[in-house]
Amino acid sequence: MKNKILNIISSSAEYISGEEISNKYGVSRTAIWKHINALKQEGYQIESFPRKGYKLIQRPDILLENEVLTNLNTSKWGKEKFYFLNEVDSTNNYAKKLASEGKPEGTVIVAEEQSAGKGRLSRKWISAKGKGIWTSFILRPNILPNFAAQITLVMAVGMIKALEKNLGVSAKIKWPNDILINDLKVCGILTEMSAEIDRINYVIVGIGLNVNQSNDDFPDEIQDSATSLKICLGKEIKRVQMLQVILEEIEKVYNLYLEKGFSEILDEWKNNSCTLGQEVIVKMPKEIIEGMAIDIDSGGCLIVKDKENIIHKIIAGDVLVRKK
Amino acid sequence: MKNKILNIISSSAEYISGEEISNKYGVSRTAIWKHINALKQEGYQIESFPRKGYKLIQRPDILLENEVLTNLNTSKWGKEKFYFLNEVDSTNNYAKKLASEGKPEGTVIVAEEQSAGKGRLSRKWISAKGKGIWTSFILRPNILPNFAAQITLVMAVGMIKALEKNLGVSAKIKWPNDILINDLKVCGILTEMSAEIDRINYVIVGIGLNVNQSNDDFPDEIQDSATSLKICLGKEIKRVQMLQVILEEIEKVYNLYLEKGFSEILDEWKNNSCTLGQEVIVKMPKEIIEGMAIDIDSGGCLIVKDKENIIHKIIAGDVLVRKK
Repeated sequence: MKNKILNIISSSAEYISGEEISNKYGVSRTAIWKHINALKQEGYQIESFPRKGYKLIQRPDILLENEVLTNLNTSKWGKEKFYFLNEVDSTNNYAKKLASEGKPEGTVIVAEEQSAGKGRLSRKWISAKGKGIWTSFILRPNILPNFAAQITLVMAVGMIKALEKNLGVSAKIKWPNDILINDLKVCGILTEMSAEIDRINYVIVGIGLNVNQSNDDFPDEIQDSATSLKICLGKEIKRVQMLQVILEEIEKVYNLYLEKGFSEILDEWKNNSCTLGQEVIVKMPKEIIEGMAIDIDSGGCLIVKDKENIIHKIIAGDVLVRKK
Repeated sequence: MKNKILNIISSSAEYISGEEISNKYGVSRTAIWKHINALKQEGYQIESFPRKGYKLIQRPDILLENEVLTNLNTSKWGKEKFYFLNEVDSTNNYAKKLASEGKPEGTVIVAEEQSAGKGRLSRKWISAKGKGIWTSFILRPNILPNFAAQITLVMAVGMIKALEKNLGVSAKIKWPNDILINDLKVCGILTEMSAEIDRINYVIVGIGLNVNQSNDDFPDEIQDSATSLKICLGKEIKRVQMLQVILEEIEKVYNLYLEKGFSEILDEWKNNSCTLGQEVIVKMPKEIIEGMAIDIDSGGCLIVKDKENIIHKIIAGDVLVRKK
């Protein structure tokens, strides 16, 4: 009923009287008043005047189901199941629970704030309240676990397209899972899976996108390496619209991947990579490799050629691009 | 206290009086009586005579913590954490929950009965009450997810050794995850993992071993393909002792794997395989491959050479050995 009331007042530029709503849906004036209050609590600015009724002044830029699903142009993503959380430890953890309960591909979880946001290798991801897009998706691709690394690359291509389309921003991919603007990290992708040896149960993709942070919003230790869309563009960005474009673009590229395979996406990935063709230093658990990042293979591994022309195939590790 | 009472009565061949227990531990006679009754409920045969006291007649062959941990010769496995369940949907599912809560490597879950025991590819595994060993282990190996298939092979080698050591039975491994005696399936291994792209969060190994079933205990559709240790040996097998040897042998081979790597274990695997050197038919999701199973590679894949001498590397699929 709350959504119906929101729909009726948002579809009119004029005041809608409580009586009109009451007649249309057969609910009491008191019930309407309660739902309106609940909407105000969520962040909707609604004016109410005695005898005139209610008018929607402004929708909130909060990633509420109402907001994200209105005019969302996807076939499944977000529409399948959508979970909005005010706060959560980590959207990936929450998604894993839902996935193990059987929630379908295309399920989207978003949170306004993460108390324990995660990056790769159990690192922390700072996820301040209302400043970014902290979201996770449940996927159930019919691929072998060995190819799960491809999913991270597919998602990165989707993010690049979304940023380009919605904001005209040209971002770059740093292997394997970061999106950079002006060499600074604006987005991280964390892919996790539950699998048997030869079958994926589910894949969780977590995306953390810095949107409306100022420099001061970042802790000291990452101020030199992190950025936000607001810092890059010099203006506040509407998160609802950004998330909608992300869901649309990522769904498109993911479906293309499932239909046509990895090679097409890999080409796009390479075109947008800031790692390939660079001198890199790769810190691995047991060794450090220095050389030229020359390619990505079909499994998503980075191929590095060192000074002795030895080829290294890297699946794990931190890559530092050597400044020229 | 229950365990202390069990210890004191099991350490004596004579009757132990309630008074003696009461004095030793400072508990009331009523409390002792309650604990004794609880032990009887669990399956311990305890005689009690007025004025003489209590005497342990027989320990149950139930996979209770008391029973399994008594004289268990492992360093971690089972001792780390041990969960005994009368019934569970699937020990692997239960283990996954515990692992996601952070339970350590070496945690063992056993159930007397599984209502939804699982085989590979979501197939059912029949797990009748008290007839088999239905168990799962939590592992946290520091290996890449791409090598997780090795774990199944390591576990299979451990099972072969345990059957040989405890019963003198010579069993064979059918790639990738079945243990056969006389060409009939006696044990299945189901390996699942939770992982990031380049890091394993945890691995769950589930083992289902048919122990004391008669032929009639198996459903019609598997009577031709399944067997139990009792059927093979013509006598009841003590499950507690069998599980102890399994934990001991599997811990040994797993630790060897972590220390020395996969190659040594792979040799043992090959020596005990009934798949290698055979004409096989491999049913894969999209094709059927017929040829000779010639090797296993370092990732645990089966290598099959077909009639055109084309080499196929098989990670998934059902393997049928062609009868000669």
